[in-house]
Amino acid sequence: MATILSPDVSIRLVPPAALSPLVVPERLLLGPGPSNADPRVIAAMNHQPIGHLDAAYLAMMDEVQDLLRYTWQTANSLTYAVAGTGSAAMEATIANAVEPGDRVLVAVKGYFGYRLVDMAQRYGADVVTIQRPWGEAFTLDELTAALEQYRPAVLAIVHAETSTGVRQPLEGVGAACAAHDCLLLVDTVTSLGGVPILLDEWQVDLAYSCSQKGLSCAPGISPFTMSSRAVAKLDRRRQPVANWYLDAALLRKYWGPERVYHHTAPVNLTYALREALRLLAAEGLEARWQRHQQTAAYFWDGLKDLGLTCHVEESLRLPTLTTVRVPDGVDAKAVSRRLMADYNIEVGGGLGELGGKVWRIGLMGYNSQTENVDTLLNALGTVLHQKN
Amino acid sequence: MATILSPDVSIRLVPPAALSPLVVPERLLLGPGPSNADPRVIAAMNHQPIGHLDAAYLAMMDEVQDLLRYTWQTANSLTYAVAGTGSAAMEATIANAVEPGDRVLVAVKGYFGYRLVDMAQRYGADVVTIQRPWGEAFTLDELTAALEQYRPAVLAIVHAETSTGVRQPLEGVGAACAAHDCLLLVDTVTSLGGVPILLDEWQVDLAYSCSQKGLSCAPGISPFTMSSRAVAKLDRRRQPVANWYLDAALLRKYWGPERVYHHTAPVNLTYALREALRLLAAEGLEARWQRHQQTAAYFWDGLKDLGLTCHVEESLRLPTLTTVRVPDGVDAKAVSRRLMADYNIEVGGGLGELGGKVWRIGLMGYNSQTENVDTLLNALGTVLHQKN
Repeated sequence: MATILSPDVSIRLVPPAALSPLVVPERLLLGPGPSNADPRVIAAMNHQPIGHLDAAYLAMMDEVQDLLRYTWQTANSLTYAVAGTGSAAMEATIANAVEPGDRVLVAVKGYFGYRLVDMAQRYGADVVTIQRPWGEAFTLDELTAALEQYRPAVLAIVHAETSTGVRQPLEGVGAACAAHDCLLLVDTVTSLGGVPILLDEWQVDLAYSCSQKGLSCAPGISPFTMSSRAVAKLDRRRQPVANWYLDAALLRKYWGPERVYHHTAPVNLTYALREALRLLAAEGLEARWQRHQQTAAYFWDGLKDLGLTCHVEESLRLPTLTTVRVPDGVDAKAVSRRLMADYNIEVGGGLGELGGKVWRIGLMGYNSQTENVDTLLNALGTVLHQKN
Repeated sequence: MATILSPDVSIRLVPPAALSPLVVPERLLLGPGPSNADPRVIAAMNHQPIGHLDAAYLAMMDEVQDLLRYTWQTANSLTYAVAGTGSAAMEATIANAVEPGDRVLVAVKGYFGYRLVDMAQRYGADVVTIQRPWGEAFTLDELTAALEQYRPAVLAIVHAETSTGVRQPLEGVGAACAAHDCLLLVDTVTSLGGVPILLDEWQVDLAYSCSQKGLSCAPGISPFTMSSRAVAKLDRRRQPVANWYLDAALLRKYWGPERVYHHTAPVNLTYALREALRLLAAEGLEARWQRHQQTAAYFWDGLKDLGLTCHVEESLRLPTLTTVRVPDGVDAKAVSRRLMADYNIEVGGGLGELGGKVWRIGLMGYNSQTENVDTLLNALGTVLHQKN
């Protein structure tokens, strides 16, 4: 059979040298994420895709929405999974909540606060910030005073700052926002599924998360939710959402009863997320939160025994992610490299201001088990001993 | 152990009724996509995630980039996989190529041309269009005349219109664009891996695709590439890319030698894409294109035997996706439903202008096999006979 290329053109680039089939090293992922997925979640991905408008898939989407509402403790109708990683869901909240010229107040206390600033600026917001040192949280009084001073349309704040390990208390913040006709936008990337979150109780208007931390799913699909107040602002927009892929006004027609095609869904990741959320519901939220708190407390005790200290005071410390101070004279990166090379354990380094000053150690979802703490503390003890 | 919630708050929403473990129906996916993945690709996903900055993962990213360059026949340095489905990669080309006020000429001949119009408008482009009926292609003369008339900064055109089944010839278009100081942006969603594409030969400046069609991978990760001319325009921007998640100026620092963290990559989908591209390279591009052409020709012959006609003339017909005219008096949707209910075969309906007038039948990647054609034609013959 003749070539289907016309005679004057031809393949010019040859294929890369024959590659071997995939080999994936086995790691214990105890950094800021991804964490190891529950093996049952990985198994759930191990199916052929089905169509994104297949009745079986649409039923799965409904289940995911219900399970996400439970996990976040919200009745928000507009609750779904964004077809991208956590940063895409972050951008979805900004893109849908912000119109050019809107004032957005970002309460910055770490790296991901700055990411919110960057994104809000790209959507034409008039961004103002308040700041706390990396490792601290804002008080309700500070936030209320800033609402009073800046009168923003949106207050954006990170519940669980992945760069610092701080849990930002949110009790009362939503009420203060509502009283100032402001929407409350909350990052729950490192808290969902591991740290108590009561979205409706706290009157949160927009929230996002990821799949690969507290939910123990593979990365690439991300929870997103909007309250009716946030939807009302979306419906009042003078111009369309600047981002087509993340436009909730289009996506609600796919996730809602109309089932209007928008994009080809990441079907296998939906299988995985549905299984991850199913396992979470079977465990029960309160039991899961307790497990994370207990495992973290066990870890913090063990750190003390090694003479190590946590960067964040205990009352604000995330059970999912601990920032451990690097002792004087220790090369943080060298320790991380040793843990990886000798033990296949991944831990995170400091980010931004905390670069070189802390390790970031995650005990999230499936990985929140005392056995993993023992493994890590033994390895860390040995590596630090070798160093000194 | 005491509850970790304060006494005045509590779980309000109960978990949904206990769900059974995931059950995924087995489908033969012969619609416009997703197609069935190669079983070896699904098996590649069946591993735990590793970190997005793990040396093993970074090596995999390099392999994916090399393999994508081969598959597209381009030497473009900036060639990578977007962490979202094909529409995200589509938006990535627009977001990175367009600054507010840029004139963008979209050559519209189907549904996805209009999607490009919608996206370009959201990024502030001065959008102009030329149109051809759904089922036809543009001639080089028509495109050149439009470049002359409109003097656009970007010409956007769909190589393989998924809504019509038309293959748009692209020989000479890139040269005409270059002569008019215009970037050529091409949608290869339904052609990559199944239809000849010579990106550099054709002087294409921006292109995108998807994973779940000609590449036989799961959906959720999407090829993207920019030529050095397109990168030069990116570098000249007066303002940042309006889309943070898809900003190539940030992403090239993650995919390039700097390895600056941007987002948590969809690690398991990268495993899958790497395996899909490895299998494509092992088969060889020309052999793969021939296979698609042969399978399609076999299918078109079989349609004739059933008395069915194709919507697109043979010289412009995509081997990956065929639009089959619905005979007078036949209810297109009823036939699709029967194929699904009785045979677990998915075919697509008409989209937009062609709604109810055609079926869209894909024979892509792993599914491009004469056995699948036989299965479909037998089922279709039976269902049509039952109807008449």
